[in-house]
Amino acid sequence: MPPTITAFEAAPDRGRGLARDMRVRWALEEVGQPYDVRLVSFAAMKQPPHLALHPFGQIPTFEAGGLALFESGAIILHLAEGRPGLLPADPDARARAIGWMFAALNTVEPPIVEREQTMLIERDKPWYAERAPMLEARVRRRLDELSARLGPAEWLDGAFSAGDLMMVSVLRRPAGAELLPDYPNLAAYVARGEARPAYQRAFADQLAVFQAVAGEG
Amino acid sequence: MPPTITAFEAAPDRGRGLARDMRVRWALEEVGQPYDVRLVSFAAMKQPPHLALHPFGQIPTFEAGGLALFESGAIILHLAEGRPGLLPADPDARARAIGWMFAALNTVEPPIVEREQTMLIERDKPWYAERAPMLEARVRRRLDELSARLGPAEWLDGAFSAGDLMMVSVLRRPAGAELLPDYPNLAAYVARGEARPAYQRAFADQLAVFQAVAGEG
Repeated sequence: MPPTITAFEAAPDRGRGLARDMRVRWALEEVGQPYDVRLVSFAAMKQPPHLALHPFGQIPTFEAGGLALFESGAIILHLAEGRPGLLPADPDARARAIGWMFAALNTVEPPIVEREQTMLIERDKPWYAERAPMLEARVRRRLDELSARLGPAEWLDGAFSAGDLMMVSVLRRPAGAELLPDYPNLAAYVARGEARPAYQRAFADQLAVFQAVAGEG
Repeated sequence: MPPTITAFEAAPDRGRGLARDMRVRWALEEVGQPYDVRLVSFAAMKQPPHLALHPFGQIPTFEAGGLALFESGAIILHLAEGRPGLLPADPDARARAIGWMFAALNTVEPPIVEREQTMLIERDKPWYAERAPMLEARVRRRLDELSARLGPAEWLDGAFSAGDLMMVSVLRRPAGAELLPDYPNLAAYVARGEARPAYQRAFADQLAVFQAVAGEG
């Protein structure tokens, strides 16, 4: 039996591949692991059956045999350890690739999410004009540092890895992506990620879910 | 040669063990790995020699032989993979423990950091009174969910693991910790972590650095 992941029944991004199931789909495609998808509604995500799988009531989850996982970082690392394609064989290079996964999730993504939430929730508040530049500066600081480290390289540390998969996924979030024209090497890096056949297959599959549910397929 | 980590030369928390070197020190103590510490100033953290180790100009870093790592999550996972004490031997339990590391860093910590930054930077702003309850609610939502999952258990998934080490470390941050009296099982969970001999040794060592630098030792 192939593993099963969960995804939004009604993607709030209208199929732009911004929900976190996209990251896991991409990893599954990179390692060539077929999988099933179970769609969950926003209401069902907060009910006991889904909370048993994911205590924070989110997607994606991952079930394979007796193993149930949540957190896209953990799922992708598990996939990367089980099949070749996402982690180098050299132990030191492997540790550094995993380091980039954590950097994407704990250092680069949080200021992007904070800016995104503020743009969504506080745009009409009187203080928005004063807070917005501060939040943009927090994101730009991380982009400055990441751009300096990447330099002219194709990927963050040698061959494409789970670290690049995660970093490209984080940089695709609109509150970061809209700043990328100021960082040509990061924009090209994200484009390289999106051009990978595994990315393309994953993107098409999540878009098909949205189109089918929306009756647009 | 033992590995070398970096830590703040002048800890902004005055030795309360809130900087991220504390997490790595704790992990090193749990697995019984001796280590050296190199202190860095805030100015030096933003200079090329440190940026070569840590592209985002932070601490801690980890150097062992030819390997250099940054991101406390990655360093702790590397330590946990190399020596027993922080990850279960069973593959499924191991994957779940790593899942809790990611949950701590990517789901529980970001709203705590956001609240912490706001309390530090925006406390005197006219909008603080309106934003503060929203940020507290975001932290409480995660604490509600985590408390429900932990229930009466001692640790998050069987024996103490790197996932617990990371979650306890995240919950010690003041913007979360000050809410813990409302969550008795989480308060007891953090206290259990802090009572571990490895935690105590790590805490004493980072406090000694502060006291020596501050001339209070």
